[in-house]
Amino acid sequence: MSGLPLFGFFRRMLGHDKAFRQAIATVTGRTPQNVRLYHLAFTHSSVVKQQPTTGRHQSNERLEFLGDAVLGTVVAEYLFRKFPYEQEGFLTEMRSRIVNRESLNGLALKLGLDKLVQLDPGQGRAARSRSVNGNALEALVGAVYLDQGYKAARKFVLSRLVKPYVDVKSLTETTANFKSKLIEWAQRNGKAIRYDLNGEARPGGVMEFTASVVLDDEVVATGMGLSKKQAEQLAAERALAALGV
Amino acid sequence: MSGLPLFGFFRRMLGHDKAFRQAIATVTGRTPQNVRLYHLAFTHSSVVKQQPTTGRHQSNERLEFLGDAVLGTVVAEYLFRKFPYEQEGFLTEMRSRIVNRESLNGLALKLGLDKLVQLDPGQGRAARSRSVNGNALEALVGAVYLDQGYKAARKFVLSRLVKPYVDVKSLTETTANFKSKLIEWAQRNGKAIRYDLNGEARPGGVMEFTASVVLDDEVVATGMGLSKKQAEQLAAERALAALGV
Repeated sequence: MSGLPLFGFFRRMLGHDKAFRQAIATVTGRTPQNVRLYHLAFTHSSVVKQQPTTGRHQSNERLEFLGDAVLGTVVAEYLFRKFPYEQEGFLTEMRSRIVNRESLNGLALKLGLDKLVQLDPGQGRAARSRSVNGNALEALVGAVYLDQGYKAARKFVLSRLVKPYVDVKSLTETTANFKSKLIEWAQRNGKAIRYDLNGEARPGGVMEFTASVVLDDEVVATGMGLSKKQAEQLAAERALAALGV
Repeated sequence: MSGLPLFGFFRRMLGHDKAFRQAIATVTGRTPQNVRLYHLAFTHSSVVKQQPTTGRHQSNERLEFLGDAVLGTVVAEYLFRKFPYEQEGFLTEMRSRIVNRESLNGLALKLGLDKLVQLDPGQGRAARSRSVNGNALEALVGAVYLDQGYKAARKFVLSRLVKPYVDVKSLTETTANFKSKLIEWAQRNGKAIRYDLNGEARPGGVMEFTASVVLDDEVVATGMGLSKKQAEQLAAERALAALGV
């Protein structure tokens, strides 16, 4: 598929829809019924203009919202069954390792979705950022859900994404301790690290914590979580990323 | 159901399972197949002891994790279809208004779930916090999903929760502008309000913003979001809650 929207449009008009259908069938394992949904799934917001009469955006962002939820549910059930003795915190953590932005971008490339995504090539780096592909993958899950139903979407996620490409065992083993890593880094580099913590009651009586990693009196990263530990771990993970460690 | 776990246990042994089954059928609209799932859904962590041999907790927290995802998906699809011209940000915001902790607690009470939840009465206020009921509702959605499948869970959520109890129209109208409200409150009370903003790149090139509401040099609430506006709105909403406005 070309990145040029008009070119893509004419290609479809000229009968290339057959090739697109075939590509979707290859990726999802099922012949698409409503092809428009899949075209939408691969339409990045950079190629659509707002239509002033309806305010309608014909980009994949709405499908991405839906697909993100479906994907989260399928992975939640998968982990629920795979780890019958693990608690909710473990399941939550594992899921976020499977469906985080970076992992989704990687999965999208493995499925070859980058070749299907329609971008405005004039918009340069921002439009071509790697998350475009992960977002399209979520939108594709949303399209399969609307087109084929939940069972088919579940099967697609499990048999085409999770089982071939997600190494759940190694994910459980690399329960990386970001706080320790950060401390080691600080000691090696003669830096002083501290955490600033704030707790805040949310409606419903849940406490939400915000932890900031302060490096030589400068906040380098912030994390939130439902426990102090969770917030600090996330802040430490982000600090390591920000510091390029 | 009694809050005393042993009493509950004996009641079940003595044939009260029939009454429990009936209660579940009334609430969900379907006769349960695997009743144990529903017992689990109503078992608060305060009534279970960790079993040292397996480390197994028999509380509803795992089901809550699963049910939260299913509920999010069903509501996502509902909003996706109901608002075909609204963008992703609107759908996200509407969903969080429908499935937030407080709203779930209210829905749980409307379904009478508080009468089914098993709590340790010795643990006092913490165990009896209102979010117990909202959590049990999420766990119930997870139980219906495992017991009856996605379609049944979807039907339960739509026909027993969303359609009878969620006034979607009024939710769209009260797109309350929390920032304005907070400014008005500050002016009325002669306080100085400012926002501290931090942006941070997340993996995948997405920016995440953290906004803190600073009232007379003290942080009263923090919010995060994928835009400055979203982060500030959330921070303002939480500040209003924290200030009891």
